[in-house]
Amino acid sequence: MNNILTYETVSLDEKDNSLLILDQTRLPNEIITLHLRDTDEIRQAIYTLQVRGAPAIGIAAAFGLYLAAKNIRTDDYSEFMARLHKAKEYLNSSRPTAVNLSWALNRMENIALTDNSKSIPEIVELLRRESIAIKSEDTQMCRKIGEWGLTLIHDGDGILTHCNAGQLATSKYGTALAPIHLGRERGMNFRVFCDETRPLLQGARLSTFELMADGVDTTLICDNMASQVMKNGWVNAVFVGCDRVAANGDACNKIGTSGVAILAKYYGIPFYVLGPTSTIDMSIASGNDIVIEQREEKEVTEMWYSRRMAPEGVKVYNPAFDVTPHELIAGIVTDKGIARPPYTESLKRIMLP
Amino acid sequence: MNNILTYETVSLDEKDNSLLILDQTRLPNEIITLHLRDTDEIRQAIYTLQVRGAPAIGIAAAFGLYLAAKNIRTDDYSEFMARLHKAKEYLNSSRPTAVNLSWALNRMENIALTDNSKSIPEIVELLRRESIAIKSEDTQMCRKIGEWGLTLIHDGDGILTHCNAGQLATSKYGTALAPIHLGRERGMNFRVFCDETRPLLQGARLSTFELMADGVDTTLICDNMASQVMKNGWVNAVFVGCDRVAANGDACNKIGTSGVAILAKYYGIPFYVLGPTSTIDMSIASGNDIVIEQREEKEVTEMWYSRRMAPEGVKVYNPAFDVTPHELIAGIVTDKGIARPPYTESLKRIMLP
Repeated sequence: MNNILTYETVSLDEKDNSLLILDQTRLPNEIITLHLRDTDEIRQAIYTLQVRGAPAIGIAAAFGLYLAAKNIRTDDYSEFMARLHKAKEYLNSSRPTAVNLSWALNRMENIALTDNSKSIPEIVELLRRESIAIKSEDTQMCRKIGEWGLTLIHDGDGILTHCNAGQLATSKYGTALAPIHLGRERGMNFRVFCDETRPLLQGARLSTFELMADGVDTTLICDNMASQVMKNGWVNAVFVGCDRVAANGDACNKIGTSGVAILAKYYGIPFYVLGPTSTIDMSIASGNDIVIEQREEKEVTEMWYSRRMAPEGVKVYNPAFDVTPHELIAGIVTDKGIARPPYTESLKRIMLP
Repeated sequence: MNNILTYETVSLDEKDNSLLILDQTRLPNEIITLHLRDTDEIRQAIYTLQVRGAPAIGIAAAFGLYLAAKNIRTDDYSEFMARLHKAKEYLNSSRPTAVNLSWALNRMENIALTDNSKSIPEIVELLRRESIAIKSEDTQMCRKIGEWGLTLIHDGDGILTHCNAGQLATSKYGTALAPIHLGRERGMNFRVFCDETRPLLQGARLSTFELMADGVDTTLICDNMASQVMKNGWVNAVFVGCDRVAANGDACNKIGTSGVAILAKYYGIPFYVLGPTSTIDMSIASGNDIVIEQREEKEVTEMWYSRRMAPEGVKVYNPAFDVTPHELIAGIVTDKGIARPPYTESLKRIMLP
């Protein structure tokens, strides 16, 4: 197998003025790198999940906004800012749930807003540096998440994960899978169970792929087999990523995560949410305030299948995420440490500058 | 949509000396009736799930054993019985978990064993009648399960079901879905959520199909969406079938059922197991003694997909069933009434002749 760890999930090709992404809709069958140049292409790549994972889409959007800024032909600051804002809003509309997307885009826009004495080319240069900083900070954050996560598990442990919050969802290491990859660098071995994660099979296609490439003992299961795997005593901890965490610790992540958390509680297995502090949204009091993206029916009834697998005309409910209530979460592992219940207190401390 | 309720799941074509089944691996795209004549074909149809569902495979095996008996060319009772036994064991080896299969085959063999003063043709005639009785008793049992199940729900209720324990799994009405179909006959309306039920998608392909054909408001969800659907308050009760129930009420059913039961408990939704008394195996003290069939990896990694959806070489854990512990079950709905906890007592009462 090709070593996926030598590929970059998302990067900026400065010579080519393009965003480079590994097309994740083609994995594991084909390894294809896309060069994306305009805002339309980049928004579409985010919407169609060619690049996905909350941190990775934040980075992709930041690079996308820099490339958009570079293409704005004007000397007028107000017009520049208006067009930049339009591009930002357009990119931001690609996925409504992940906080990293709007966080990265706001951070980019704020850099442009801070100093209107600068020339347009100077502002574009600030945007370039900021987008690169967003990516390199992500790598550092992921590594720190890995460090903290490693304190929760032991060599030889069984870990269950849902969806893909791995290297393919970030700049490097991943969030939920950062302790596994970092542990591998240190010669540790884990046995990882990957929920396939219907409807888009990020677990089957992506987590298995990057874990196997890193030499991890990887077992694929259907989502509905997690209960049996836990009952068998094979799981020491559950590690999942997050798209947005509310101030009370409610964690929004890929659809099905809340179910895994309920199972873990039933079987007495600690359930951990791992993500950078940029995923924590202190402006949202609880998970009830998080907008859940609903996606197309055909993802369930047709996508990935050679034949249609459900009757024509059947109704489909297809939420992309759900919210895991904080009482099911044993810890929220961030780059700044592990928050423990009660989260209203611990997250506040972690978010202090 | 064609009305599936006009099709027979499994029947005996006496003129043609064949077993007729609706090929369930082709639904919902194609409605194809197969005529199966020899024991090999019939065993293969059961193994490949062309006919599936614990009661339906019991009926198919009974018809299959009758057809096998009819084809035995001997006048010697001992040789006849030896060859009948061999055919019985061969059919019985097709699926290890469902009790109905061995129950139906033992019942057939016992008819042949009871009276060795009869001629071979007379014994074959007894087997014919017994196989037809097994089917018609199943229809009556399913109807009674429907009657008892209807006492648990109200017109307009939301019901969640897993896999297919419907008309397509039995001779008529189904078990888990019997209350829905019987309620429809009486002009009632329900909103049914069907877990798609990976890896073989019996919920997506079969339950949606037969429910829509019966005019039921049917919504398809991926297995990992059940938690969100329950959280939304859309589910008044969970109805699932069963392949084998132990004397303590532990219920073995399609993989993922135990997870649904744990979710239902968490959300305070009553979880009911519905099945004929033939599914209750008083010889087994608890679910720990039930053998769980493990099936091929490619069901998870390839089947139904146009492209392979997981890396080559990935390990796969693919249990076909799991056991729901009795403490998660609000009631076991049988043709002889509803057993309530403690099941060690209530099942004993229900199983009295």
